[in-house]
Amino acid sequence: MDLECASQETVKQGLLARGWPPIKGFSKHVKTKVLEFFSLLIKLGLDDPRRVVHSLKAGLALTLVSLFYYYQPLYKSFGVSAMWAVITVVVVFEFSVGATLGKGVNRGLATLLAGGLAVGAHQLANLSGRIGEPIVLGIFVFLQAAVSTFVRFCPQIKARYDYGLLIFILTFSLISISGFRDDEVLELVHKRLLTVLIGGSTCVIISVLVFPVWAGQDLHNLIASNMEKLGIFLEGFGDEYFKMPEDGESEEDRPFLQGYKSVLDSKTIEDALANFARWEPRHGRFQFRHPWKQYLKIGALTRKCASRIESLNGHLYADIQAKREIRSKIQETCTTISMESGKALKELSMAIKTMVKPFAADIHIENSKSSVKNLDTLLKSGLWDDETDLLEVVPVATVASLLIDVVTCTAEIAESVNELATMLKFEVVEPTVSPEKPETGQPKIGIS
Amino acid sequence: MDLECASQETVKQGLLARGWPPIKGFSKHVKTKVLEFFSLLIKLGLDDPRRVVHSLKAGLALTLVSLFYYYQPLYKSFGVSAMWAVITVVVVFEFSVGATLGKGVNRGLATLLAGGLAVGAHQLANLSGRIGEPIVLGIFVFLQAAVSTFVRFCPQIKARYDYGLLIFILTFSLISISGFRDDEVLELVHKRLLTVLIGGSTCVIISVLVFPVWAGQDLHNLIASNMEKLGIFLEGFGDEYFKMPEDGESEEDRPFLQGYKSVLDSKTIEDALANFARWEPRHGRFQFRHPWKQYLKIGALTRKCASRIESLNGHLYADIQAKREIRSKIQETCTTISMESGKALKELSMAIKTMVKPFAADIHIENSKSSVKNLDTLLKSGLWDDETDLLEVVPVATVASLLIDVVTCTAEIAESVNELATMLKFEVVEPTVSPEKPETGQPKIGIS
Repeated sequence: MDLECASQETVKQGLLARGWPPIKGFSKHVKTKVLEFFSLLIKLGLDDPRRVVHSLKAGLALTLVSLFYYYQPLYKSFGVSAMWAVITVVVVFEFSVGATLGKGVNRGLATLLAGGLAVGAHQLANLSGRIGEPIVLGIFVFLQAAVSTFVRFCPQIKARYDYGLLIFILTFSLISISGFRDDEVLELVHKRLLTVLIGGSTCVIISVLVFPVWAGQDLHNLIASNMEKLGIFLEGFGDEYFKMPEDGESEEDRPFLQGYKSVLDSKTIEDALANFARWEPRHGRFQFRHPWKQYLKIGALTRKCASRIESLNGHLYADIQAKREIRSKIQETCTTISMESGKALKELSMAIKTMVKPFAADIHIENSKSSVKNLDTLLKSGLWDDETDLLEVVPVATVASLLIDVVTCTAEIAESVNELATMLKFEVVEPTVSPEKPETGQPKIGIS
Repeated sequence: MDLECASQETVKQGLLARGWPPIKGFSKHVKTKVLEFFSLLIKLGLDDPRRVVHSLKAGLALTLVSLFYYYQPLYKSFGVSAMWAVITVVVVFEFSVGATLGKGVNRGLATLLAGGLAVGAHQLANLSGRIGEPIVLGIFVFLQAAVSTFVRFCPQIKARYDYGLLIFILTFSLISISGFRDDEVLELVHKRLLTVLIGGSTCVIISVLVFPVWAGQDLHNLIASNMEKLGIFLEGFGDEYFKMPEDGESEEDRPFLQGYKSVLDSKTIEDALANFARWEPRHGRFQFRHPWKQYLKIGALTRKCASRIESLNGHLYADIQAKREIRSKIQETCTTISMESGKALKELSMAIKTMVKPFAADIHIENSKSSVKNLDTLLKSGLWDDETDLLEVVPVATVASLLIDVVTCTAEIAESVNELATMLKFEVVEPTVSPEKPETGQPKIGIS
C-alpha cells in the first residue's frame, strides 16, 4: 500500500512538474490559434487600411450618439427612446457610403410609413372596445407580417428594399402593439422617427465626411483591375506555352498567371457594389445617375473572357502536350495574338482607370485580328503531312481556337468600354508615343 | 378674344371629356405595374409554395410574442422590455431552420456575453465618479465598437458570427450607456436576456415544428439537380451538334440545353446553404455533423464541368461549323461519349437524391472512357488527307478535346460522390435492369 501511494505520489509530482501535459498542450494550442488570429487581423488591416479607418469611424459614430444619454438636456427630451439612435447607428453604419445611405434611407422611410399605418391601425382597433382591441391588433400584425415577409421574396425588391421591409414589419408591430398599453402612440411614433433620423444622419454624415469609401469608385476600380489581370495573363501566356518544359514546374511557380482566377467569381461582389453605388450622390468623377449597368455589362464580358482563359490555362500544364515541331509552327502567330489581346485589355483597363478614351486598344485589337487571319492561312496551308499524328494536333488546334475566341471577347469588351466612354464623355488625349503598327493588313482604327 | 376663350373652353372640355390624357396615361401605367407585381408574387408563390408557408409562420410567430403585451400577468413582469421579444422574432426568423438557429444562437450568446461585459464596464465606470463616468463609458463604447467592427472583416468570422458581433456591439453599447441613467443594470440585462431567449426560442420552435425548411436538404437537392442539368445537356448534345443545321434556329429553341447555365453561378447559394446547414440538428437522413464540405467539393467539381459544357455550347451555334464529312467521321464516337457521360451524371445525381450507392455510373464512365480511346484511334488513323482544310478540322478537334475534358470531370465527380457514399454509408441496392455493357474494352467497375 505504502509503495503504491508513493508511486502515485511520484506520478503526481511528475505531472505537476511537467505542468500536466494535456493542459500544457491545450494552452499551447490556444496560444497558436490566438497568434494566428492576430496575424490574420494585422494582414486584413494591411491589405486594406480603409478597414481600420472604418472601424474607428464606427466607434466615433456610436460614441457621438451616446451623448444623448450623457447630456442631461438631450436625455430629458428623448428619455429611453434615445436607445433607438444607438440601435440605428449600430445597424445602419456600413463600409461604403452607398450601403450606409441605402440602409439609412430604407430605415427612415420604413419607420415613417409603418409609424403612420400603425397609428391608423391603433385608431381602428380602439373602436372595437377593450375586448375586441387585442384581437383586431393581432389580425393586423399577422396580416402585415405575412404579406411583408412574402414580398421580401421578390428578387427586385430584395436587392434594394429588403432592409426597409424588415424595419416596416418591426416598427408596425412595435407601435401598434405598444398602443395597447400606452395611449401616447403619436408621441411614440414621433420620438422613434426623430431618433432614427438622428442616428441615421449621424451615420451618413460621418460616412461621407470622414475618409469616405465610395462603392461606385470600388466598382470602377474592380472592373478595371479585373480586365488588367486578364491582360497580364495573356501577355505572359505565349512565352509560357511555347517555352521549353522544365522539370518540377507547376501552376504555383507563376503567380502572375493565376490572377485571372479571382475574376471568375466576381459576379456577386460586382452586383452588390452596383446596388450600393446607385444610392450614392455625385462624388469626384461620378454622377448620381452614373451608368452602373454598363459597368456590370463590361464585368460580365470580362468574366466570359476569363472562362476562355481558364480553358487556356488548362492547356499550359496539360499531360498531353503537342509536339514541339507542330507547336513551333504556330508559335509566333499565337504569341502575337495573345500578346496583342493582352495589351488591348491592359489599355482598356487603363482607359477606364484614368477615364481617358482608349486610343491604342483598337490598334492592338486590329493587330491581333490580322494575326488571326495569319493563323487561318497557316492552318489552311496544310501545315502538317499524312504522317502527323492528329492527336498531337488537337491540343494546338484547341489552343488556337481558344485564342481566336479570346480575340472576339476582347473586341466585345472594347466595344462596351467605348460605349461607356461615349456615355461618360471620356477625355480624348493624343498619346505621346504611337503604338506599333500591325505587321500585315490595313489597321482600321475605330472598328473593333 | 371671345373666339380665343371659346376655343380654350373647347380644349378644356375636350380634355375633361377624355379624362385628361396625362393622368389617364399615368393611371394606366400604374395599373399595369401593379398587375405585373401581383402576377410576379403569384409566380413566386407557385414556384415554391414553402414561401407562402414561411410568410404565414412569420406572422404566427409575431402574433404569439405580441401576447406579452396583451396578457396582463406577462406584461406586468416584463413591461416595455417585452419589445425585445418582438424585435428578436422579426430579425431572427429566417426561411430555413439552419439560418434561424444560427441567428438565434448568435443573438442569444452575444446578448449574454455583451450583457456580462457591460455590467463589468458599468462597475468600473462607477468607480470614476460622476464626472469621470461618461468619459470612461465613452472610451469603453468606442473601443469595443472599433475592435468588434474590425473583427467583422475577418472572412471566417463573417461567415458564421457576423450577426453575433453586431448584436454584441448593440447590447454592450445599450446596456453600458443605459447604466449611466438607470442603476438597475443587472435587472436590465436579465430582462433583455430573458426576452431575447423567449423571442429566439419562439422562432426556433415554430421553424422546426411547423413545416420545417431544412437548408441541408436544400443543399442536398441543389447539388443533385445541378448534376442532373449537366447530364440532360450532355445526353442531348450529340444529336444537337451532329444534326442537319436548319434555318432560323437559335439557343432559345432548345430550353433543355440551357439548364446548365444556372449551375455556373451557384457558388454563392451553395456556400450560404452549407453555412446554414451546419447549425441544423439531426433531421431525416441528415446528421448534425453531416459532411457538408464534401457537398461543396462536389458542387465545385460540377461547376468545373459546367464551364467545359459552356464551351461546348458555344460550338453548337458557332458561325464556323466543321464540314459535314469531317463531323460525320467522329459523330458516333462523340455522341457515345457525350451520351454516356450524361447518363453517368444523371445516375450520380439519382444516387445522391435517393442516397443509394451509385451502381451503373461507373459502367457509363468506363463506356465513355473506352469511347475516348476509340476517338484517339480514329484521330490517329489519319482521318483526313492533305486536301482537308485544317481550319475545318479545328472546331471538330476542339469539340473532341472538350468532350475528353468532360469525361475527366465526370470521373472526378463520380469519385467524390463515391467518397460521399462511403462517408454516409449509402444503401447498396442491386439494380433490376443491368445497364448496357461497353462496346469495346473491358469495363472495370469500381475504377473511375
